[in-house]
Amino acid sequence: MSLDAEIFSRLSRIVGKDRVHTDSLQRETYGQDWTRFYEPEPCAVVFPEDTGQVSRIVKLANEVGLALVPSGGRTGLSGGAVAANGELVVSFDRMNRILDFDDIDQSVVVQAGVVTQAVQEYAKDKGLYYPVDFASSGSSQIGGNIATNAGGIKVLRYGLTRDWIIGLTVVTGTGDILNLNRGLVKNATGYDLRHLFIGSEGTLGLITEATIGLTRDPGDLSVLLLAVPEMTDVISVLKVFRSAVTVTAFEFFSQQALQHVMAHSGLSAPFEVPSAYYVLVECEEGVDDVLDVFTECGEQGWVVDGLISQSVQQNLDFWKYREYISESITPFTPYKNDISVRVSQVPAFLKSVEDEVKSQYADFEVVWFGHIGDGNLHLNILKPETWSIVDFKQRCEEVSERILGIVAGFNGSISAEHGVGLLKRDQLRFTRSEEEIAVMRSLKQVFDPNNVMNPGKLIPD
Amino acid sequence: MSLDAEIFSRLSRIVGKDRVHTDSLQRETYGQDWTRFYEPEPCAVVFPEDTGQVSRIVKLANEVGLALVPSGGRTGLSGGAVAANGELVVSFDRMNRILDFDDIDQSVVVQAGVVTQAVQEYAKDKGLYYPVDFASSGSSQIGGNIATNAGGIKVLRYGLTRDWIIGLTVVTGTGDILNLNRGLVKNATGYDLRHLFIGSEGTLGLITEATIGLTRDPGDLSVLLLAVPEMTDVISVLKVFRSAVTVTAFEFFSQQALQHVMAHSGLSAPFEVPSAYYVLVECEEGVDDVLDVFTECGEQGWVVDGLISQSVQQNLDFWKYREYISESITPFTPYKNDISVRVSQVPAFLKSVEDEVKSQYADFEVVWFGHIGDGNLHLNILKPETWSIVDFKQRCEEVSERILGIVAGFNGSISAEHGVGLLKRDQLRFTRSEEEIAVMRSLKQVFDPNNVMNPGKLIPD
Repeated sequence: MSLDAEIFSRLSRIVGKDRVHTDSLQRETYGQDWTRFYEPEPCAVVFPEDTGQVSRIVKLANEVGLALVPSGGRTGLSGGAVAANGELVVSFDRMNRILDFDDIDQSVVVQAGVVTQAVQEYAKDKGLYYPVDFASSGSSQIGGNIATNAGGIKVLRYGLTRDWIIGLTVVTGTGDILNLNRGLVKNATGYDLRHLFIGSEGTLGLITEATIGLTRDPGDLSVLLLAVPEMTDVISVLKVFRSAVTVTAFEFFSQQALQHVMAHSGLSAPFEVPSAYYVLVECEEGVDDVLDVFTECGEQGWVVDGLISQSVQQNLDFWKYREYISESITPFTPYKNDISVRVSQVPAFLKSVEDEVKSQYADFEVVWFGHIGDGNLHLNILKPETWSIVDFKQRCEEVSERILGIVAGFNGSISAEHGVGLLKRDQLRFTRSEEEIAVMRSLKQVFDPNNVMNPGKLIPD
Repeated sequence: MSLDAEIFSRLSRIVGKDRVHTDSLQRETYGQDWTRFYEPEPCAVVFPEDTGQVSRIVKLANEVGLALVPSGGRTGLSGGAVAANGELVVSFDRMNRILDFDDIDQSVVVQAGVVTQAVQEYAKDKGLYYPVDFASSGSSQIGGNIATNAGGIKVLRYGLTRDWIIGLTVVTGTGDILNLNRGLVKNATGYDLRHLFIGSEGTLGLITEATIGLTRDPGDLSVLLLAVPEMTDVISVLKVFRSAVTVTAFEFFSQQALQHVMAHSGLSAPFEVPSAYYVLVECEEGVDDVLDVFTECGEQGWVVDGLISQSVQQNLDFWKYREYISESITPFTPYKNDISVRVSQVPAFLKSVEDEVKSQYADFEVVWFGHIGDGNLHLNILKPETWSIVDFKQRCEEVSERILGIVAGFNGSISAEHGVGLLKRDQLRFTRSEEEIAVMRSLKQVFDPNNVMNPGKLIPD
């Protein structure tokens, strides 16, 4: 699909001629995120540099009936930033400036295109800390983090992206610019539109700037790696750690996951005797303080073996067992589900899913890992070597419907932190009621009456 | 205004005959909150006991064109729970049951009418902690806290009510029941309607149940009382404390406030030499840890005198200087403003307001106190003895417009934590833009097309 010459010319007048790209390489690059199920087919990519330009682009889109797709670091896993239907991609790559900082307010004002890691590093330079962190933080942009309410590995201690956004500038679907909350801690003056935009995946408007709260750097942390044979005991271990120390991360992975990591990375087994599950605990207290909790977990029989890190380097080494999982299973064409239930429900939920997969698809290998302290599980089903990709995908879609049915039965979420986008749009009914979806449709109508903002994403037809 | 017999009969069938009160005492009691500027005039008060009954009441209201006013602990200070136009008051007094608790999830499910303090005590009994706390927590109800996103004295460390609500059951203006987020920590599946209802002051629907997150009890805290002559130094003191320890409260009050407290309560002066401002710091660390910070504040010349509490009893005694302010100035007919700016802006903002008041109204005494760590200031202007109440009120309204103009100039909030209700509705424009108010109007239309939910509140005509 190509861009009308008249529209190209008007866009060029807004952003400058060399900021509207129509060549096929750029269109392919900017027309997709990390979700590789869709053929990118945008009409062009435009690179605005400030909120005013974004507003003018949105107004033009309304006038000429052009659909817009926001594009940040393109690390999304649900197709929220895919432009497969001739849309105009609005890239935030050039809106990457840090605009303001205040060390009393402990806040930084950034444009939406600033990379997450740049915010982390900026905070560190100022003696402060931005605690939202995840694997893609070196590429993802703050605007995308906000649009999907990104979570990651520190949620247990520091919450989600939502919890750090104290001000937000957005351009609505009609091109209006809203300055929401303006960095205030307390502001009880009606509907908090800021929170409506957080997690809206570009369907209500475009996020152009954010005021981000920062906090005190927690300094060096302690990391423990524990072998926990029983899933119910994993939850008991979480409970005693949380009651005794300040837990900053509580991750788990299965023996299957560990085997893939060792085979892929060459890391050696952390313990002599394998265990069904492993837990990585990170907390603020020093080794002396965690030793008592560790001992109690052993005496209770929950933890059969364990390691406590003695250095910052060892912290990093322990984390590798968890961090390498994703890349080590990639060759096995994993079918991924990012789901959550209440933490107390995890053991029963996990068993239900395993029983279902085993009874229906005995050949399939299931690899579990995730942020279990938040009830967030990454379920990966690996393709058996003997299956064709086509057959595997088809069967996985059947599996998925059954698994999401189980998620719904546990009152869980079909997308804990990856958003809905295109990929999970038609599964939204497993998590949100018909009435909620109807309300969402009406809310979109309020902010985006002409449906120019990321149409087709998030809300089922 | 009296209730139509047919409607009375239909309401009685929903909640039971003795749960619809039409006598004048009940109507007067339940027709108002702590805001005493309006004449209560509801048609009746109804006492449902569960979400289903609330839904049926709302559907009836839509059918017969009856306006509804939600009523919790009636401790509001902006008239959000005032029924002055023949509305039906929906009291949550009978919806006061705790429905569920889970010690793994660290959460409790409550009906909206549970008193805040009951949640705090329930959490304590379970070895956990509900950190939202304020002067009215013995009377206010959770539903009202959520509807106004209540703040209080621990915001600096624990955030607002919003931050603790992990699930919400609401009845929308059309009578639909929405179960929002259902206690999940991570749930990236579209617009977070929960956050839209938090702080909506009953104008979108009625909050009937909530799942509340709890946390670890911080145990005994340290409290310091400091004499700080310069306002800019108050901010410096905040900065060094926050960078060194975990501050749970950072309150300030002026010498005027202290004098009123001493005159009213008989407390003696905390320090020999008076200071323009005083700061109360509460933090998690022990006396040894805070001593260094305290010493630094002295060496810098910011703090000219100070006390560190040595016991839990002394903690309480120090807090009295702050807590007694409100009641000690009540006899002086204070004209109150609950405003906020960014913390870094406090000294300049405070000076601007004082200059304005002094230049225009030299007779007026200004008493400042508040949660300065959040940028939240309570500004009280006292009536000079020689002025009539009528004159004073009229002049205060002029003052108020000027002060709110200054608030707007500092990008602040005209209601930091008291909400908008009736009292501040026509001042909303000082804090929210025309476009934001237009959007709010449209959002109300989505949830409450027949305008039965707390009509006339929050959103200007």
